[in-house]
Amino acid sequence: MTGAAIMSDEVFKANLQQRANVVEEFLKNYPLDNAAIPARLRQGMLYSLNAGGKRFRPALCMASAGMCGMDEKEVVPFAAAIEMIHTYSLIHDDLPAMDDDDLRRGRPSNHRAFDEATAILAGDGLLTDAFAVICDMPLPAQNVLAAARLLALAAGSTGMVGGQMLDMQLEGAKAGTLADVERMEALKTGAMIRASCVCGSVLAGASAAQQAALETYGAALGCAFQIADDILDIIGDTEKMGKPAGSDEKKGKSTYPALAGLEKSRQRARAEADTAIAALSGFTGPEADFLRAMANFAIRRAV
Amino acid sequence: MTGAAIMSDEVFKANLQQRANVVEEFLKNYPLDNAAIPARLRQGMLYSLNAGGKRFRPALCMASAGMCGMDEKEVVPFAAAIEMIHTYSLIHDDLPAMDDDDLRRGRPSNHRAFDEATAILAGDGLLTDAFAVICDMPLPAQNVLAAARLLALAAGSTGMVGGQMLDMQLEGAKAGTLADVERMEALKTGAMIRASCVCGSVLAGASAAQQAALETYGAALGCAFQIADDILDIIGDTEKMGKPAGSDEKKGKSTYPALAGLEKSRQRARAEADTAIAALSGFTGPEADFLRAMANFAIRRAV
Repeated sequence: MTGAAIMSDEVFKANLQQRANVVEEFLKNYPLDNAAIPARLRQGMLYSLNAGGKRFRPALCMASAGMCGMDEKEVVPFAAAIEMIHTYSLIHDDLPAMDDDDLRRGRPSNHRAFDEATAILAGDGLLTDAFAVICDMPLPAQNVLAAARLLALAAGSTGMVGGQMLDMQLEGAKAGTLADVERMEALKTGAMIRASCVCGSVLAGASAAQQAALETYGAALGCAFQIADDILDIIGDTEKMGKPAGSDEKKGKSTYPALAGLEKSRQRARAEADTAIAALSGFTGPEADFLRAMANFAIRRAV
Repeated sequence: MTGAAIMSDEVFKANLQQRANVVEEFLKNYPLDNAAIPARLRQGMLYSLNAGGKRFRPALCMASAGMCGMDEKEVVPFAAAIEMIHTYSLIHDDLPAMDDDDLRRGRPSNHRAFDEATAILAGDGLLTDAFAVICDMPLPAQNVLAAARLLALAAGSTGMVGGQMLDMQLEGAKAGTLADVERMEALKTGAMIRASCVCGSVLAGASAAQQAALETYGAALGCAFQIADDILDIIGDTEKMGKPAGSDEKKGKSTYPALAGLEKSRQRARAEADTAIAALSGFTGPEADFLRAMANFAIRRAV
C-alpha cells in the first residue's frame, strides 16, 4: 500500500457507474449511420452491446486520460470502441465452435437469441466499426493513430485473439502448465486491460514515462483481476469483475489457482495489486485515486 | 469508350501481376511480430493469406495512389491490409453457419484444413491486425486516419459485413427483388472495391475532385465486376475475376442476371465499365491506363 488516499467502495462504484453511463449514452444510438446497417445485424450488435456489464475497460481508458490531463469526455469514442471490441470478443467466444455458451449475463447468448451467422457477423461488425469510430475522433491525428495501433495489437493475433486460440488449445489438452496459463491469460484478457490504460495516456499526449507507468499499472491490474476472479470461481463467489460472468463455467479448465493453489494465488493477486498501485505513485487527483481503488477493488473479495 | 490509349490484356495482366508480387512479398512474412502469435493461429492466417488470388483490390489501391502522384511503394502496407481484410471475409463466409463451403480456390477451406474455432479466430486476427498494419504507416497521420476510417466503414456493418448479412437473408428467402440484390452486392463486394480506389487517393493526399473521381470509378467498377461475374456463372465460364471462385456455387441464389436477364445485364455491365472509364478522363499516365484497362478487363468475357 502507498500513503495515497483510500477511496471507499461506495465512492469507487459511483465513479465507475458514472463513467459507464457516459459510455452507454454514447453507444445507445449506435455510433454509425444506423440507417445504413441492415436491421437484423444492427439488432444483433445492439443486443450484446446493451446487455450491461460494468464497462470497466472504458472506465480505465477514461480515467487514464483524465489522470494525464485530458478532459475525459474527449476520449469517450475511444472508450466506447474498446467496449465494442470487448463485446465482439464475448459474442465470438460464446459460439458453438468456441466455448459453446448458451447464456451470457443471464440472457441467451447472441447466437441463441439470433443465429450463428448473425452472431459471427455482429461480432465482425462491432470489431470493424470500432476502428471507424476511433478514426473519426477530433483529436491530434498522431495520437489517435498511435492509440489505435496499440489497441489493434492488443485485440489481434498478438493479443486477445491469440489468447483465445491458446485457450482453445489448453482446453483441448487439459494439461497446461502454469507458464502456459499465464501466457494465455496475459493475451486473452490482460492485453486489452493494459491497452485500455495505455491508450488513455497516449490519447492525452502523455509523456513516455507516464505511458510506461500506465503500462505497468494495466499489466499488473489485468493479472490481479484474472487471478482474483479464478479464486472466486474456486471458492464459489459469483461477484466477479475482471471476467464476464459465465466465461469460466467450463469444467476442469486450467487456471492459476487450480495449478498454484489458493494460498500462492492470494499472495500473487495481492502483489500484483500492490504493483499496480505503486506504478501510480507519481500521480495525484481523483482519477489516480479511482485507479488505485480499482486495483484494491479487483482483489477485495478474493484475498 | 474514351480516346485513351488501350492497354493490351497481356500488358494489363503483367501490370496486375507486378503489383500482386509486391503485396505478396510484404505479406509473405506476416507483417506483425510473428513470434508473438500462437503457432496454430499464425498457420491458419497464412494458409488463407498465401492461397493465391489476383490481389486486384490491393492493385486498385496502389494504382489509384500512383495515379494521384504518390510512389506506389508507400501504400503497400495499406494495400496488404485490404487483402488481409478480404481474406478474413472469405474465411468467415465459408464457415458452416454461413455459406458452408468445403473448398476455396481448389483447396480445403480454412475450417476444413484446420477447424471452425481456428477459422473464426484466423479471420478475427487478420481483420484486427490489418488496422495495426495501417496505423503503423509512416505517412501523414491525417491521411492515414482518413483512409483507415473509409476502409473500416467499407468493411463493417455499413459495408461488407452488412452485405453478407443481407446475402444470408436473401438466401433464406429465395425471393429477392432486383433492388434487394443490388443493395446486397453494393455492400458485400462493392464497398471494398470502391474503398480500395478511394483510399489510394486519400493516402496520396489527392484533391476532393480526384477522390470523387475515384469514388465514381470504384463504384462503377465494382458493379461491372459483379454483374459480369454473375453472367459468367450463368453461361458457365469459370474465369471470373471480381468474385473469388467458388463463392457462387450456391444454387438458386438471386443475382442481377438471374432477375434481369442476360441481355439487360450485358448492357448494364458495359454501361458501368464505361462510367468507370469516363470518371478517369482527367487522369493520364500508366496508372490511369491500367485502371481503364481494369474496367474493360472486368467485363471482357461477359459482354
